[in-house]
Order: sequence, then C-alpha cells, then structure tokens
Amino acid sequence: MSSTSSTKVAIVGLGTVGTGVARLLLEFSDRTARHAGRAVTLEQVVVQDLKKPRSIRLPAGVLSADLQKITANREITVVALLMGGLEPARSIALKLLASGKDIVTANKALLATHGPELFDRARELGRSIAFEASVAGGIPIIANISQCLSANQIQSLHAILNGTSNYILTQMEAHGASYDDAVREAQRLGYAEADPAMDVDGSDAAQKLAILAHLAFGARVDWSDIPRQGIDTLELADLRYAKELGYRVKLLAVAQLGVSGLELHVSPTLVKLGSPLAEVRGAYNAISVVGDAVGRVFFSGLGAGQMPTASAVVADLIDTVVGRSAITFRTLELWSKQGARVAVSDYNDVSGRYYLRFNVADEPRVLAEIAGALGHQNISIASVIQHEAEEGSQGVVPLVIMTHNTTEGAMCRAIDVIDRLSFMRGRSIRMRVRD
Amino acid sequence: MSSTSSTKVAIVGLGTVGTGVARLLLEFSDRTARHAGRAVTLEQVVVQDLKKPRSIRLPAGVLSADLQKITANREITVVALLMGGLEPARSIALKLLASGKDIVTANKALLATHGPELFDRARELGRSIAFEASVAGGIPIIANISQCLSANQIQSLHAILNGTSNYILTQMEAHGASYDDAVREAQRLGYAEADPAMDVDGSDAAQKLAILAHLAFGARVDWSDIPRQGIDTLELADLRYAKELGYRVKLLAVAQLGVSGLELHVSPTLVKLGSPLAEVRGAYNAISVVGDAVGRVFFSGLGAGQMPTASAVVADLIDTVVGRSAITFRTLELWSKQGARVAVSDYNDVSGRYYLRFNVADEPRVLAEIAGALGHQNISIASVIQHEAEEGSQGVVPLVIMTHNTTEGAMCRAIDVIDRLSFMRGRSIRMRVRD
Repeated sequence: MSSTSSTKVAIVGLGTVGTGVARLLLEFSDRTARHAGRAVTLEQVVVQDLKKPRSIRLPAGVLSADLQKITANREITVVALLMGGLEPARSIALKLLASGKDIVTANKALLATHGPELFDRARELGRSIAFEASVAGGIPIIANISQCLSANQIQSLHAILNGTSNYILTQMEAHGASYDDAVREAQRLGYAEADPAMDVDGSDAAQKLAILAHLAFGARVDWSDIPRQGIDTLELADLRYAKELGYRVKLLAVAQLGVSGLELHVSPTLVKLGSPLAEVRGAYNAISVVGDAVGRVFFSGLGAGQMPTASAVVADLIDTVVGRSAITFRTLELWSKQGARVAVSDYNDVSGRYYLRFNVADEPRVLAEIAGALGHQNISIASVIQHEAEEGSQGVVPLVIMTHNTTEGAMCRAIDVIDRLSFMRGRSIRMRVRD
Repeated sequence: MSSTSSTKVAIVGLGTVGTGVARLLLEFSDRTARHAGRAVTLEQVVVQDLKKPRSIRLPAGVLSADLQKITANREITVVALLMGGLEPARSIALKLLASGKDIVTANKALLATHGPELFDRARELGRSIAFEASVAGGIPIIANISQCLSANQIQSLHAILNGTSNYILTQMEAHGASYDDAVREAQRLGYAEADPAMDVDGSDAAQKLAILAHLAFGARVDWSDIPRQGIDTLELADLRYAKELGYRVKLLAVAQLGVSGLELHVSPTLVKLGSPLAEVRGAYNAISVVGDAVGRVFFSGLGAGQMPTASAVVADLIDTVVGRSAITFRTLELWSKQGARVAVSDYNDVSGRYYLRFNVADEPRVLAEIAGALGHQNISIASVIQHEAEEGSQGVVPLVIMTHNTTEGAMCRAIDVIDRLSFMRGRSIRMRVRD
C-alpha cells in the first residue's frame, strides 16, 4: 500500500445519488483511501445546469458544466456517470469511454436499453463499466452473482426489485390504505416519482431483472420482452384475501431454469407468510438466489435512496481504482457477442398456481360456469372464498379462487372465456402463487 | 479472455469440503473456466492417509501423500488448504507460502489462532490468503464486508454464525425436544460433531466473530478474549417463555460500535418474532449488517455443509486465479501490524435488557427479595411471568423476569447475590434481549 499515490475521479450528474457520492468521497476520504490503498480525490463534477441550487458545497474549481474538463484531463481515470435517462447519458458514456475513462453508473434504464452498445464499446477500448448501483440499490447483488457465487450454476432468482411497489403494498396492508392513497403517500415521502408508472407497472423491475438474467444465466433478452404485470390493478381486497389464505402479495421478479428454458417474468405474487420474501417491508428490496452448490442465499437491503445507492457507487469506484473491476469486466460476458447460454421459455408454457378474483353478480350458476371454464382448460380448483354480499354491494360479490398447478397459456384462455360471461362485473384479477 | 491458457491448482486435504471442491473443479470445469477466463485444472491433491476410502475418483496421478508434489511444482500457483485443526495445517500453510503459492482456506480455527503469523508471512512474501469459506459457509460475508460495503463505516453486525446451535434451537422449538435429544438428532444428521462442545458453548461463533470484527472494524482481538455464553445451559422452558414474550432464542454473535468502543460478545439472545434474524431456521446462518451509508443489509444461507462451503472455496480459487484476491489482500489490513482502529469495550459496560429465569422454592417473599437484589443494582423489572406450581414440581416454580436496560456488570453483581438466596433451586439462566 503506497499511501502517497492518489487516483483522481469525477462525477457527471449531481442529483440525489451524485450528491451522496460526492459527500462520501469528500467527507470520508480516509475510509476510501484505506480500502483503495491510496487517496481517491474528487477532481471534477460536471452538471448540465450550473445555476441549480445544490445541497453540497464542493471545493473551488470542482464544479463545471463542461464535460471536456473531464475528458481532456488525463489524470482522471474513473468517472461516476450519475445522470438519469437515456440521452445525453448514452452520448456522454461513449465520450467518456473514448477518452479512456472507466465508468461506474447507477443508470439502470441506460444499461437496459443501451447496454449492448456501451459494453461492446468498453470491451473494444479495454475499459470497464461497473454498475452495482443499477440493481437493488444498496444490496451488492451484482458482485454476489458475478463473483461470490461464481462456482454455482444459478438455478433461480426470486426478487423484490422495486421499492416503490413494495412500499405501496406494505402501506396498503399495514394501514388498510387504498392503492391511490398509498401511491400519494409514497410520492409525499419521495419513494415514488410524480409519474410512478414505470415503478408500479412492473417495467422498472423488468429492466433490473433483464440485467440479472444476463449476468446469472447468460440470457440475451430485451427487458421490454419480459412478460410483466404491475400492482396497479390490485385492490386492498386482494391483499386481504391473500392474507386470509396465508400469503402476502409481493411484486416478484422471477428468473428460473426449467425444462423448457429460462422462466422470466414480473408479476404480483402470493408469497407464503413467514417466508423471507414475504417479510420484506417498505422500501426494502430482496433477492433469494438458489445455486446448485450453495443452496439458497438470501439478500435484503434498501433498494433505493441517496446513501444506499451512493454506497454501491463508491464501492464500484474503489473496485475500479484498485483494478478489480477491470478483471471482473473482462470475464463478464454481459451483453457480449457470445451466444446466449440459455433460451427463454415461452411464457405460455410457464407453470404455477394462481389466485383469481372475479367480481360477479350474485346469481345462481356463477361458480358452476367459472369452474366449467377453468375445467375446460384442465385447471382444477384448490380452494374458493365467497363471502355473503355486503350491504351497498348492489348484488356484486367477489369470488376468490386458488387453483392447482396449470400453465400461463391455459390460464389466459380460461380467463378470456370467463371475462365474457354475462354475470361478470369489471375485470378479473389474477396473481401467481409461490409456495 | 484467452481460452487457451490454463492455471493449475491443488488441494491439501480431501475430507468433506475438499471432496466438494474437487467435485466442482472436475465436474464443472466449464463454469470455472468461464468465470476465470481460462481453464482451472486440478493438478494435485495431497492427503495424509492414502489408504482412506474416498467418495470421489480423481484422475490418475493427481492423488498423493507428498506435499512436495505441490511445493516443488512451479506450475501450481494456488492451493486450497482444506484440512482442519491447527497442526499440521499451520506448518503446511507456511510451506505453501514459502514455495510461492497463494492460499485459499476454509480453516477458521487456523486463522483465528495463527492468523497474525500467516498473514504477516503472506504479506512479506507477496502472496495472498483468501478465506471466504471460513465464516458462514456459503454466505459471501467476507467479500461483502471487505469489498461490497467498503464505502461504509460498519456500525453493527448481528449474526447467527453457528449452524449447529441454530439447528438445535430450531429442533427444540419446533418439536418440543429437550436439549439433549436435539443434540443427538443433530449428531445423527451430521450437523453436530461427536463432541459438539465448541459449537454449543459459543467458541466456534466467537472465532468467526473475531475474524469479522477484524475485517469490519479493524479490531485487534483474540477470539478467546470475546465474552461468550453458549446454548448448552438452556432448557426447553426458556424457549417457551421467550415465545410467550414475543421472542425467539438465537445464539447471536454481536459486534457493535458504541460510545465506549466496540461491543463484542456471543450470547443466546431473545430476538423479536418476525424480525429477519428470528426467522432463520435450522442449519442456516445469517448476518445483519448496518453501515452508515447503506443502512441495514441482511444475508442468510447455509453456514456449513460440503457444497455450500465448496462454493465459497471455489469462488476464492477463481478470485485468486484472476488476480482479484491479490488486490483485495493488499488493502485488507487483517491481522496487520497496523494498530487497531477501535478499542473493545469492557463487557461489564455493555448495556442491554435481560431475560432471567430462576427456579425458586414456592414460598413468600421470593419475588420481593429478587426484585430487591435487582433494584440494589438499579435494574428495574419490565415484566414477570410466574405460573402456578405444577404437579410433581415438588414446590419448585420457575420465575421469569424481563428487565429494562442495564449493564452486564450490574447484572452480574445482582445475579451473584440472587444465586446465594436460600430459596434458589439450581442455577439461574440469563439471556440478552434484542429489541
């Protein structure tokens, strides 16, 4: 350890995460130096708008709006790219690579969309891209899958990857809040964006799942091709029925090897009460990984937020400064021209049990007809909950059915028939069940 | 990635873990090659007794009883040292380092006892020692603390590090088994040694805690100086009272920064039902880490067993082959001559709540005298459980007390007085409480 040497780093983007990273580098430089074996100096921070008010004071000369201050400075070897969105993030990433910088980023959308281009370019130029912070915030799942569990064939990942959805579900269950009220509360606390669509419709989780599936299974899948359902169609009643049945609803991202290939989807799922995933509350994320040698390993932690994400970014900066990232990146095969090691299953062939809720007119033969439509697809019923019609329900009652094992395809066909039955009132709700 | 190159590795010791490592290297060489970017060939396995029956078939010429086959072979650069105990493991480790080999080991007792000597020697010779498998089996806690969480000041570790104790406690609670019966069942299933003393008296957990405290806090502590209490004095009744109070008993290893320094101990502890640590069952281990940036991160997985441990050893072999271990080892400061970064608190000053159980003669003034002895040390009582004497109890009844916050020192002084009171029948039981 040569304590006299120093490495200069830079940040592009001084939003929430960028500010957290700057704070760790400036206020806790002793800690960074100890782990890196040398001083790590924040040399330059480049932002788009110099006039924006900032909650951090940077040393004189550090802040600018000129990317050239980084690209032209040969002493800066590593850059944390911490702006969101696709452009200009993509163009900036390409410029940074071209000017010889290694990159650390937390921008998951950028990787999910432009990963192949950026990774190919980095490989061509002999540079590295580290992206621990792009999935599951403070949980070091990228390092764990790509390094720590490297002796395993990963067999499955079951993960809670969207903290906003998990926070909303937790609020609904704990306080009996409606979906809309829980969303507003999440926005008020800063857990949800003004437009939370990508969070609650499963897109954000699908982008993260795509990255993990690339890493863990060598799958080559575009995130937008991953079947996904969000929590935005659920009602408080569904959470209550789930509990009555011994489950809790979680937005699960699943990647699992099966006989027909890799099962891959994001869906609200009934998870057994008392199981580790069911007990993940609030804005926490969690990943349950099964490897053929290690068995089940479970990770949980804060999936977003300034300092948890900054923790992951700074760990990546240190790994890059000391040279570990370069080594890891060389063997990563992520978005490489290497062929896929596994094919993704047709979602219609993926099997499982289902929770179904139908709002039906309270009339005879309802259960018989629904059961008939399910039976026609060889779907058998495991249990039924139907309570008496409540006052003010105007003769509409919810009918909840848990099925035995079937396939997604059979379920789609059955639901298609059921949704057109005359006694149906509103859309049916279905969720997967994890036993 | 040069797929034509190859790195030769060796194993010393072909017990349970050694056999698992050999199996992963021989049967899944494609996987190892992909992550290492080159073939990793098992060139030599050295054992003490060639005549012992083995459950694995090695390629011709690989097995021998001659360590020189490794030390004299310059092509072998990394050796997995997988024999247990202190000698000849220590001498062999020194010979391997002297002959230029990097070492990977799962031998926690060796590190806990001879870590300073071995690490100094490795540093002198420019070699590395990787030891992921020495703590918490398949959970990659060493890499997570020393690399992934390197942007944090770790503030606390609360961990279940002994799978045998956790298995015994789980059996007792789930099946109402006595301590002795649960130990026998654990031995039958291979979870406990013929002599499980080190597992159940807290020594094994203390050895692992010492390693984690070195890594996470820069503490310099000998494992045998860590205050520890095992589960061997507990009775089924204690587990039942804990549950009645809303807790589950776990053997917790704790390292926590406080005002007076680093709190460090291993003790059976009442953990709140529903908290992640309380839900860790059977032979699983778990570590709950709090970092000042990342917040709480939780890890669980199998703490022992052939393949989980082999998974950690092979990940270390890959890390060493690609050069990551050498980088990490240089900045590790583990057992280095560097001074301690934190002082260990006097255990007497460590504060907390306590669970107490006294077996007392069913006579007047018992509660008054016990409460008096506690009050004399300023310990106030939070709750009391005393059920009516059962038939056949010969007038002896258990009295269970939960205290408010106090210190270990005050508690020791109070117990010392109480244990000498005339109505006491047998030793008092005390456990810490984690809220």
